[in-house]
Amino acid sequence: MAEVKKDKGPKLADPIESTIDLATQEMITRSHKLGVETVFDRALNMKQCNIGLQGICCKNCAMGPCRLPLPKGGIEGEDTRKGLCGATANTIAARNFIRMIAGGAAAHSDHGRSVAEVFMAAARKESDAYTIKDTEKLLAVAPHLGVAVTVEVDGETLDRDIDEIALEVGEKALNEWGKADGELLYLKRAPQPLYEKWEKYGVKPRNIDREIVEIMHRTHMGVDQDYKNLIKQGTRACLADGWGGSMLATDLQDILFGTPYPLQSEANLGVMKKDHVNIIIHGHEPVLSEVIVAVAQSQEMIDYAKSKGANGIQLGGICCTANEMLQRHGVPTAGNYLQQELAIITGACDAMVVDIQCIFQNLANVAKCFHTKLITTHPIARMEQENVIHIEFNEHYALEDATRIVKMAIDNFENRDADVMIPQHKSAQIAGFGVESIKYHLGGTFRGTYYTLNDNIINGRIRGIAGVVGCNNARTKHNEHHITIIKELIKNDVIVLSTGCSAITAAMHGLLTPEAAAVYCGPGLAEICETVGIPPVLHLGSCVDNSRILLAATEVVKAGGLGNDIADLPAAGSAPEWMSEKAISIGHYFVTSGVYTVFGGTLPTFGAPVFQDYLFKEMEKMYGGMWDVTEDPIEHAHKMIAHIDKKRKELGIDKARERVLMDMADRQKLEA
Amino acid sequence: MAEVKKDKGPKLADPIESTIDLATQEMITRSHKLGVETVFDRALNMKQCNIGLQGICCKNCAMGPCRLPLPKGGIEGEDTRKGLCGATANTIAARNFIRMIAGGAAAHSDHGRSVAEVFMAAARKESDAYTIKDTEKLLAVAPHLGVAVTVEVDGETLDRDIDEIALEVGEKALNEWGKADGELLYLKRAPQPLYEKWEKYGVKPRNIDREIVEIMHRTHMGVDQDYKNLIKQGTRACLADGWGGSMLATDLQDILFGTPYPLQSEANLGVMKKDHVNIIIHGHEPVLSEVIVAVAQSQEMIDYAKSKGANGIQLGGICCTANEMLQRHGVPTAGNYLQQELAIITGACDAMVVDIQCIFQNLANVAKCFHTKLITTHPIARMEQENVIHIEFNEHYALEDATRIVKMAIDNFENRDADVMIPQHKSAQIAGFGVESIKYHLGGTFRGTYYTLNDNIINGRIRGIAGVVGCNNARTKHNEHHITIIKELIKNDVIVLSTGCSAITAAMHGLLTPEAAAVYCGPGLAEICETVGIPPVLHLGSCVDNSRILLAATEVVKAGGLGNDIADLPAAGSAPEWMSEKAISIGHYFVTSGVYTVFGGTLPTFGAPVFQDYLFKEMEKMYGGMWDVTEDPIEHAHKMIAHIDKKRKELGIDKARERVLMDMADRQKLEA
Repeated sequence: MAEVKKDKGPKLADPIESTIDLATQEMITRSHKLGVETVFDRALNMKQCNIGLQGICCKNCAMGPCRLPLPKGGIEGEDTRKGLCGATANTIAARNFIRMIAGGAAAHSDHGRSVAEVFMAAARKESDAYTIKDTEKLLAVAPHLGVAVTVEVDGETLDRDIDEIALEVGEKALNEWGKADGELLYLKRAPQPLYEKWEKYGVKPRNIDREIVEIMHRTHMGVDQDYKNLIKQGTRACLADGWGGSMLATDLQDILFGTPYPLQSEANLGVMKKDHVNIIIHGHEPVLSEVIVAVAQSQEMIDYAKSKGANGIQLGGICCTANEMLQRHGVPTAGNYLQQELAIITGACDAMVVDIQCIFQNLANVAKCFHTKLITTHPIARMEQENVIHIEFNEHYALEDATRIVKMAIDNFENRDADVMIPQHKSAQIAGFGVESIKYHLGGTFRGTYYTLNDNIINGRIRGIAGVVGCNNARTKHNEHHITIIKELIKNDVIVLSTGCSAITAAMHGLLTPEAAAVYCGPGLAEICETVGIPPVLHLGSCVDNSRILLAATEVVKAGGLGNDIADLPAAGSAPEWMSEKAISIGHYFVTSGVYTVFGGTLPTFGAPVFQDYLFKEMEKMYGGMWDVTEDPIEHAHKMIAHIDKKRKELGIDKARERVLMDMADRQKLEA
Repeated sequence: MAEVKKDKGPKLADPIESTIDLATQEMITRSHKLGVETVFDRALNMKQCNIGLQGICCKNCAMGPCRLPLPKGGIEGEDTRKGLCGATANTIAARNFIRMIAGGAAAHSDHGRSVAEVFMAAARKESDAYTIKDTEKLLAVAPHLGVAVTVEVDGETLDRDIDEIALEVGEKALNEWGKADGELLYLKRAPQPLYEKWEKYGVKPRNIDREIVEIMHRTHMGVDQDYKNLIKQGTRACLADGWGGSMLATDLQDILFGTPYPLQSEANLGVMKKDHVNIIIHGHEPVLSEVIVAVAQSQEMIDYAKSKGANGIQLGGICCTANEMLQRHGVPTAGNYLQQELAIITGACDAMVVDIQCIFQNLANVAKCFHTKLITTHPIARMEQENVIHIEFNEHYALEDATRIVKMAIDNFENRDADVMIPQHKSAQIAGFGVESIKYHLGGTFRGTYYTLNDNIINGRIRGIAGVVGCNNARTKHNEHHITIIKELIKNDVIVLSTGCSAITAAMHGLLTPEAAAVYCGPGLAEICETVGIPPVLHLGSCVDNSRILLAATEVVKAGGLGNDIADLPAAGSAPEWMSEKAISIGHYFVTSGVYTVFGGTLPTFGAPVFQDYLFKEMEKMYGGMWDVTEDPIEHAHKMIAHIDKKRKELGIDKARERVLMDMADRQKLEA
């Protein structure tokens, strides 16, 4: 990225080179005026280690670090690079890669476990703040955990008591993390052929924690030294994430807080209000923020805010806590990952409340320059800096904790500096889609199935399905790749399911509205969106909600006509601006669930070409899905489209699409 | 290390600069003659990354790698170094440090789980190869897992059926890895004040796997950013190793294979025999090698070997598989970690059988140059190279698997090249000490307690206790630091408990014999060793058997007169030539169990001085133990002795020792 000209000291980021978002540009400019450093500046000043980027730096024992850079011009003949123990580039890159999966799977699964523990407190009625809200979802989930929803009494089938079901669901769910026998129960939710592939290749997770721990063991010095065997364990752990920890997180959150249904809201920093108390909630776990939403909407707190001179309380979300609050309550989205510092730089953030994951430690340094109270809330995610306030959240005192936080923000309103600058940019968005609502919106008229969706894929109006997900990364221009790729996909009639910061990005740029269809979509997809009244990009929630994409894909398989397995579908996955280890876990569970998955930027595998080839080519022979990477967003989209077309051809529905397109052309000719 | 002069190509290691062991020197020279590269050569040619060594390279997200090297001349004023997210050097070093703990704890604990699974097969009588061998140990262990050893029948207390106890012990043990409630059961085996410290600081492990997984979560991008909180989780996980996975591994192995008692054997490459079939077993898990020992000693196999022209079968061990086979069967030790390639370079290794951990991938390249069959046996530890034979071990077919392996070695005897060179160096050793045998050897005359040991510490003949453990590292001169430190300790009347490659090193250099006392010990320790007939260095087994040191220390506390907690004892820990992540986990569970622990070489913490200070100084205020590091082995020993003297002073027994030493001097004067 280009820099702003400056005499000395660290370089400053050029706002226009840093992001395609106007609000973000304005705030970067303001940060420079105020002398507050942000991630955009740091990205300019920190040089990346080229060896680390290649994935072939091994720090797993103290005879290292051993670094095995590719020779300039690549490998000619035999690859003789090795570490002190003899580890090859393949071994090292595979070790590093699956340790990333371990980090990502641990993050998602530990989040899921937290939710399961709150779920248990609710099921045991130990908490005022939480109840079993969505009993319909409870009843839908229970059988997948082997929990009966009916009981036989005297030969009669009766409904079981909901409380009893909830308790058993909670216990069975928690058991998934550490049970000593058996296999992950949710694996059976996948299409049967996929389940059989997992069985054939020996990658069915036994429980969630064990697979993560086994990665750490296998990647220890002198254990597994066969990249194929290493990645096999990576597969087992990522499946324990996607079909385990993440899916349980989603299900239990839906039961506790309600299954999302489409609703309207707004996105970008412009959602903050100068005359309101602004509370920004940032992180991933909704258990605290659910209660904050309730408390902030209470008349008592609104009155209290007014007593302090504010016109009300404005909540805004960042990262996946934003997505959770959005999809269930319509709380507006203040921004995505790279905007977290900027929300404070507005000068209007009275409190930023963070829980876990993707939180910059530099928030503390930025908050120091403003009146903002930065509040950490989770016992496992604290900050070193002294200006950070830690209010440890306890599900048994959730209301008290949330009230204390909201009051602290209100009390802080009067400490604002006069110099407030909230960018005026924001976009309308429709969010809150899910497996259930897609069934409703795109389903048949008389029955809620995926029949109509499948029908329109078969007839070619919808060319295919893309899952576009994941982070921002300060190493690429903020939002640019997300938007370029998504626009290219929908232009080519590919419907997009989106989660995480990618969904926030799409929202910020107006792609989560039904109106976007007419502007950006190809004729087939536009027709569907207009008929049904949905946006061409469906916001499916947070990062753990990528499990919704797995289940939506499974529903599409079940609805028939598009093959027997996820790998048969005209579908592809994408993480345009990935940065976190979670993205690697997600990417790999998509791949090993049968999805061709393209990452933007770079992957830390290119220093080990044989291993990378295994991921990019050999995986397809096993699971039907494979990895790919490219720095060019247009090429990125067209790689996905090419895969979709390949699958259409295999299904014998490529001709249908040609007809559809011919019809359109013919119609246009007639109209002309 | 210095290099041998050579015209071109990679540098060659100077044998005399590489190791203090003559056998190793001879084999390095031979490796150069034969043109076979070893770790000693690679250590010369691979430059270590100075930033990685400092512990301040963060690869935990793809905005990095972010590298925060210390400025030359250190930090003046505020430390403003930060990564793209704002992570400080403290955060990065603490993250890296506890991920090392995660790797180490996972390795030990996963090993323990494997043993627990075999234990279950034995308890269920599903396996011919394994039975519950040591029922005395079973009965001793059962109560610690909450398993009753008696049963009340009609008001009478009867012994419970052994099979029933074994089954319940197996189930309870396996449960420790993943139980959803409670805390690790073995924590209560620690002295009460130590247990209370763990409770006070919130570091009691809930189960084994969860704490490792939580490390991976907390160290994910944007989660825990407070080095104190990060290390707290590191503590929780390492305690789940030392007082959990490792201790369970030791206990269950003792029950399955017998609790070790002192026996005589030999150590170093000279144990291999030119006219025998040589089978080298290398790795860590004894479950397969136990059966290999039994099979190799069978008349049938010995006859088969003779039919192929050999005079018999010689087993030899490397690393901790060696220690396991040694302590229970007297199988001689062929070498330690850095000698694994050299055993093949003798040309006399007919099969090298490896299981898990500390195995060089380069063994495959070395084996390719000789007739040696390199056999991997564990599903989680395979090798990429095509010349490696994989015979996957299954506890249900253990005898068949072991027979196949031994036969393969015998069949390979005739393929040996004429050019065999086995170094003639080897030393006698007494090994097989443990909590139980120390009780016997150093206990009171009439009762097996630690009373006599304590008495001799109190009266000053024994100045203190040192645990010297851990790996070799090709970055330091092979064996030199182990031997220098141990000799300095025993010269100063400090008795040494040793495990792992450190114990092998002591054996190779003759320190595991009672005769060593007269040569190397100070007068007080020499007197004890001579009276009781023990070596001044007691071999306590493998790396997981460091749990024996924890329990021995606990017994010393219980015997009375030396304070109420491990932290009160005149004791210190040491890992002179550490290299593996397991060493970091061990080091940290020693520290947080109250032991001052010194590491040789460097620690990947010096790039973050504040965090390092926390480990080196602040930890002592919490747990009584703390970390230290030095490159100088003599200083290393004297740091330990100074701590021992500090503790003697705190106990008020420093005067006693002065008297003892005066007595000796007086006696010498009288004799003169």
